[in-house]
Amino acid sequence: MKRLILASGSKIRAEMLRNAGVSLETIVARVDEDAIKSALMLEGAPARDIADALAEMKARRVATKNPEVLVLGADQVLVCEGKLFDKPDSIDAARTQLKTLRGKTHELLSAAVIFEDGTPVWRHIGRAQLMMRPFSDEFLENYLQTHAEDLFTTVGAYKLEAQGTQLFTRVQGDYFSVLGLPLLEVLGFLRTRGICQE
Amino acid sequence: MKRLILASGSKIRAEMLRNAGVSLETIVARVDEDAIKSALMLEGAPARDIADALAEMKARRVATKNPEVLVLGADQVLVCEGKLFDKPDSIDAARTQLKTLRGKTHELLSAAVIFEDGTPVWRHIGRAQLMMRPFSDEFLENYLQTHAEDLFTTVGAYKLEAQGTQLFTRVQGDYFSVLGLPLLEVLGFLRTRGICQE
Repeated sequence: MKRLILASGSKIRAEMLRNAGVSLETIVARVDEDAIKSALMLEGAPARDIADALAEMKARRVATKNPEVLVLGADQVLVCEGKLFDKPDSIDAARTQLKTLRGKTHELLSAAVIFEDGTPVWRHIGRAQLMMRPFSDEFLENYLQTHAEDLFTTVGAYKLEAQGTQLFTRVQGDYFSVLGLPLLEVLGFLRTRGICQE
Repeated sequence: MKRLILASGSKIRAEMLRNAGVSLETIVARVDEDAIKSALMLEGAPARDIADALAEMKARRVATKNPEVLVLGADQVLVCEGKLFDKPDSIDAARTQLKTLRGKTHELLSAAVIFEDGTPVWRHIGRAQLMMRPFSDEFLENYLQTHAEDLFTTVGAYKLEAQGTQLFTRVQGDYFSVLGLPLLEVLGFLRTRGICQE
């Protein structure tokens, strides 16, 4: 049975896979995400291509040094009205972002790419649609104060596993893609390689 | 602000609400679910009506003794090809159930009913569709052995928070309803009563 490396520092991605019974190691790929994103956006690349390219780039970086194992790269982007959103880097940026998303539906795209023998052999993009409610400014300030630690770790400045649920009226599509990995599809591929039981 | 009682012994329902920042007490309603279910099924009641009736009955039992608080009752049923499934009560029953669901899509209906001043004032049914993959008998036996503790606590004999993900190729609809409570809609009602911030 081949070993699996997750080329991502995301705790929840590793946890989702381990909860499903998958053994893995984690190596954080050093990729200049911002530079790649900016370049692709300048070219007018659609959001799904950007997520896919970032997932591939992370996996490739690790796969080049570890060609004998399977390497899983993943990336998640948030799109609202055609605009791509980044992880906010301050409380002010999170406030601005949440005010922009308030009362609207946005989409989370979760890309996964798997390398085998140093080349990409499998890829998938999961999608989820999230409708944010028209919460009050008071709610928002309270949320920003009490959840400061969550704001900078996710593209949407929320965690749906925790109080982030209070931001929404509806969550549709693939829930695992909300968490950052199209888990069921990844497990499907891992079964073809004997990493999970058929 | 009114107090909230959850009329359910389900740990995950209480956890979902607490994670969303809702304070609550729990009182387990003693209701003969099997008798009610059998009677309603004999009458030819559709699955959604059965889930709704059970949720209401649990809430009513607690609300009668606690008319001054809000009481939330909840119930979840599993339907596959028109047939209602119960929580399995043995490994053998779980094996039979999972073999019946294997390779098919089933639906989970999560009903919630809220009582105020001793009467039902709000109700909702959330839905999710789950497609089970055609797993091998070997996988199933392994799953039954390693997850015995999960089998008897859920209607589907699986926990999607854990290795239950390995049973599925697709999960659609309201994820919170998979976990047993249409959380976003419940939070929406609680906001109208000041239990959560608007």
